[in-house]
Amino acid sequence: MDHFIYRDGVLHAEDVPLTEIAAQVGTPFYVYSAATLLRHFQVFDESLAWGEHLVCFAMKSLSNVAVLKMLGQAGAGIDVVSIGEYLRAKAAGVSGDKIVFSGVAKTREEMKIALEGGIRQFNVESEPELEVLSEVALSLGKVAPITVRVNPDVDAKTHAKIATGKKENKFGIPISRAREVYARAAELKGLDVVGIDVHIGSQLTDLEPFRLAYRKVAELTEVLREDGHNIRRLDLGGGLGIPYTRSNEAPPLPVELGQVIREEVGHLGCEVEIEPGRLIAGNAGQLVSEVIYVKEGEDRRFLILDAAMNDLVRPSMYDAHHDIDPVIEAEPGVEPETYDVVGGICETGDTFAKGRNLPPLKAGDLVSFRSAGAYGAVMASEYNSRPLVPEVLVQGDKFAVIRRRPTYEEMIARDIVPEWL
Amino acid sequence: MDHFIYRDGVLHAEDVPLTEIAAQVGTPFYVYSAATLLRHFQVFDESLAWGEHLVCFAMKSLSNVAVLKMLGQAGAGIDVVSIGEYLRAKAAGVSGDKIVFSGVAKTREEMKIALEGGIRQFNVESEPELEVLSEVALSLGKVAPITVRVNPDVDAKTHAKIATGKKENKFGIPISRAREVYARAAELKGLDVVGIDVHIGSQLTDLEPFRLAYRKVAELTEVLREDGHNIRRLDLGGGLGIPYTRSNEAPPLPVELGQVIREEVGHLGCEVEIEPGRLIAGNAGQLVSEVIYVKEGEDRRFLILDAAMNDLVRPSMYDAHHDIDPVIEAEPGVEPETYDVVGGICETGDTFAKGRNLPPLKAGDLVSFRSAGAYGAVMASEYNSRPLVPEVLVQGDKFAVIRRRPTYEEMIARDIVPEWL
Repeated sequence: MDHFIYRDGVLHAEDVPLTEIAAQVGTPFYVYSAATLLRHFQVFDESLAWGEHLVCFAMKSLSNVAVLKMLGQAGAGIDVVSIGEYLRAKAAGVSGDKIVFSGVAKTREEMKIALEGGIRQFNVESEPELEVLSEVALSLGKVAPITVRVNPDVDAKTHAKIATGKKENKFGIPISRAREVYARAAELKGLDVVGIDVHIGSQLTDLEPFRLAYRKVAELTEVLREDGHNIRRLDLGGGLGIPYTRSNEAPPLPVELGQVIREEVGHLGCEVEIEPGRLIAGNAGQLVSEVIYVKEGEDRRFLILDAAMNDLVRPSMYDAHHDIDPVIEAEPGVEPETYDVVGGICETGDTFAKGRNLPPLKAGDLVSFRSAGAYGAVMASEYNSRPLVPEVLVQGDKFAVIRRRPTYEEMIARDIVPEWL
Repeated sequence: MDHFIYRDGVLHAEDVPLTEIAAQVGTPFYVYSAATLLRHFQVFDESLAWGEHLVCFAMKSLSNVAVLKMLGQAGAGIDVVSIGEYLRAKAAGVSGDKIVFSGVAKTREEMKIALEGGIRQFNVESEPELEVLSEVALSLGKVAPITVRVNPDVDAKTHAKIATGKKENKFGIPISRAREVYARAAELKGLDVVGIDVHIGSQLTDLEPFRLAYRKVAELTEVLREDGHNIRRLDLGGGLGIPYTRSNEAPPLPVELGQVIREEVGHLGCEVEIEPGRLIAGNAGQLVSEVIYVKEGEDRRFLILDAAMNDLVRPSMYDAHHDIDPVIEAEPGVEPETYDVVGGICETGDTFAKGRNLPPLKAGDLVSFRSAGAYGAVMASEYNSRPLVPEVLVQGDKFAVIRRRPTYEEMIARDIVPEWL
């Protein structure tokens, strides 16, 4: 559920008409609904209310400091995957003891900054990382709290580019080698082993892979406890999918995931962390764009937008579907037309949708891409020298630009011409 | 041919060891060879020396102002696809009469800036664009020089995302409707019809599609001249491929393309424009990265780099191959090892290469991605809050940072927290 609805024929984000934001900010822009973000967080938080837990927002999906501040104030922890994300979370006022640090390529410098700034735990992804982290912690006179990410070899049944729990993936260590790796971790003086981490992929629409993975984690917890490790925290990752089309069967609800977690690991007395990203941010954001041209092709009609693949790369990168709505609602009874919806970038891959039915549209009309809050703005680039797309946050009847569009002068000023040219 | 070679066992860009740049700039970074860029431009320029011509660098492939300035000084024109690119070209000192403006989504504002700043021609991609451009030109008291991009419905035999000359693509107008569209263009008082434009795709490794397309353009030229249009310029687009692997059969040379152009359109007495991007920039740039970890997976070994898909998206986006070389040359006789080469981003799609043979490498070693000069830095993003990758230009024994790495403070400062949060 989200807060993007038509009122008097105009698509609103909460109480603000998207036409009003477009007039003020220009198109394209991302717009987020504060109420939706908060509601999604609350739903997760309640799904784990049966025990000690922390819902850590996976900010790789949406990293604007304003959004992080709002979620942090609501009680969310943050899952970060780079020191850039860590510093954003800190800038948003989130304290280190609510930040977990994931990712396969943590550098010494990143470890140092996180240890000095405070960190809830590192989710360690490899044996060499264990050794390096212990070294860095010791050099600072600190002990690093860690989990080891185990790879349960479960098929997440999602897009290959975002499945992460199979043994051929780069993530985690094979669960079959966990005892050996935990034994080594316990020897390292710079580490404090606090738990186990697992994450099997993104945009999962079936609970069964979660259940299988969590069952393996529960078994491992008991084995590791027998080996003498004080396993007291389970980081169960994120990955619950969202409905990208109205016609899709709805994915499982957070409360159902919470129930699976309770059934599989509730008896262990561990603190539980989960790391939802897409499910909190996805349907809380939309990308609003203006029609530049309606073009008649030889055998199809193109809707050419001022948004392009550099602003929203998911359709081009993952063959992702986004529903597209007109900002001005169609009159009842109007016959739809069929469009290939494209951006202006000089690649055929810059196609948002093929053969999409929409009410008849003309140059100057606005459209909105649904479910664009996650992996939208964070993946944007300036390809074709297009300015980085701005972001807007709506709360009730208020809205604010939370990242403005750069000027061309700012973009060009980043380039430096050597004096010898 | 490029200027990246081993000397005394160290990979150099021209006369500069990549180790020296890495020590000063940090990794990852893009490095370009000025001599290679200039040589590639010269080869194209010479390939058309048989007639009046302008080689317009397709700056969508590499848009740094320093590179544009260097090519502009050598006599290159520039092919731009947005007003951001136009303003970069102008900032590089390229005069408007050497800039051609392509792209399917030109806005009124973009047209206005280009008409006021001076433009060689607009390559018009649709009938609505014709009408709008004429209107904008008249409102400024100007006449816009144009070609119309025709879509010859030729199979470019390249990756679907970068094939642009088929009738189901968004580009150009069907060649079958050209007479009608040119008739309309001639009626519009704000336009001056100067020629014809065609571009069938990118990374073509066969001359035959070019020949077929150019033959159609030649036939169309004669038909349009009979209709009374003063066709005096042919923009024949870009798209010649480059060798991405040493083992590939070499693609055709520019001189061979120049010969095909001469054979197919040389008799028409038209000025010829071509728009190479990849062939000028591709092998003139490399991406240098450091090994963070070597990780033993269950059934494979991972080389985890500090470069990731946000820095070089081509492998993830287009399944593109890039040769990867160690910066320190392997000793003779050393047995290679097999790696999956990956970045640190939390997606399985962040994989540069699978099962790649390389000399044994360890954390701290440097590697370099070949053929990364085109569609590398221009497509980079800050996904996972990773700083935008810097760019370095080498000329002889000199090098300079031509876009520096932003600081985390600068990245975070772009976000604005509303006072009501």
